[in-house]
Amino acid sequence: MTLKRPLVISIEGGEGSGKSTVIEKIAEYLELQKRDFIITREPGGVRISEEIRKIALDKKYAEMDARTEALLFTAARRQHLIEKVLPALAQGKIVIFDRFVDSSLVYQGYVRGIGIDEVFLMNQFAIEGFLPDLTLYLDVDPKIGLERIALNPGREINKLDLEGLQFHEKVRNGYLYLLANYPERIVKIDANLDLENVLSSVIKEIELRS
Amino acid sequence: MTLKRPLVISIEGGEGSGKSTVIEKIAEYLELQKRDFIITREPGGVRISEEIRKIALDKKYAEMDARTEALLFTAARRQHLIEKVLPALAQGKIVIFDRFVDSSLVYQGYVRGIGIDEVFLMNQFAIEGFLPDLTLYLDVDPKIGLERIALNPGREINKLDLEGLQFHEKVRNGYLYLLANYPERIVKIDANLDLENVLSSVIKEIELRS
Repeated sequence: MTLKRPLVISIEGGEGSGKSTVIEKIAEYLELQKRDFIITREPGGVRISEEIRKIALDKKYAEMDARTEALLFTAARRQHLIEKVLPALAQGKIVIFDRFVDSSLVYQGYVRGIGIDEVFLMNQFAIEGFLPDLTLYLDVDPKIGLERIALNPGREINKLDLEGLQFHEKVRNGYLYLLANYPERIVKIDANLDLENVLSSVIKEIELRS
Repeated sequence: MTLKRPLVISIEGGEGSGKSTVIEKIAEYLELQKRDFIITREPGGVRISEEIRKIALDKKYAEMDARTEALLFTAARRQHLIEKVLPALAQGKIVIFDRFVDSSLVYQGYVRGIGIDEVFLMNQFAIEGFLPDLTLYLDVDPKIGLERIALNPGREINKLDLEGLQFHEKVRNGYLYLLANYPERIVKIDANLDLENVLSSVIKEIELRS
């Protein structure tokens, strides 16, 4: 089966859910299909977005309000969309997002407590209705996710890895809430299974939308 | 007559409308009344807001999208509100804004064409319903405003001063549109009149709300 039209896919999930591996395998699959695609993760090399996120993530700004931070992530999202994503789509390329708007809904809206609906409404100003055709949520039991991180010594440790189990459970609850509310655009992949099973589910979902 | 409770006032208007002079005179009036107050203009010395606006206004970022810019101004607004304005109000101080959310509605929403309602809705994420008790719009014929700027050689020239008459007329139309849509919170002051007349109207409006 050959993919015919540009497609926008986002990959979401907590730490240790296997996002990076899944994205690598999607890339291999698309290469075999001889399709043009880009894989991007905000700020994605867009200089304005890089500068904006630098402020949002700077530890010296401990006084930063959660809504200020959410607005900055959204400003970076807008510029990344305009400069990198829309031009790629215009060239007929498939776009794979390593995290997109749903990460903001979960981390800022749900976990930090601003509210999912409020963060989504504010993000609409930036995305103007632009949402992925398919969002794959890699659902993993946080205990299994954290074990995988511990067992992978080559992995670069990030800020989220260092949070406790309770935090990761809250992240998962946030994604499950989104899944219950947007079943038409988000598909849950059982990422507790072994890699082969996960990948065959992922490719099946992509082929269904091709 | 003595002012009894904290009050939030914003002063709006195009170039040459006399905002700075009016604000100076309000300050003199409040000092005579022995009231505590602050006068602030975003980013107002709040370091996160200063950094954010520095990106928004940096000329090297010519590729910046209008919505990215609007999100950045709003992020700066949020942090300024949280760090500077709300604490001042909590101390019982009157707050005078030299421009606030209505400037975004006019310059980003109306003049740059994003849409007033969209910019207002997005700003609600930052202000959560916080609006001045009184907004004084100093309405001046752009020809008179530009003449005043030309006649005042001591005035520091800013970016907006250098725009043509057509731009300033568009700004005025934006404010008049707001005035028609939010008559309960914005008061028009005829700033074509001489200073004495303008100031007596301004003080009368402030006393009415004291």
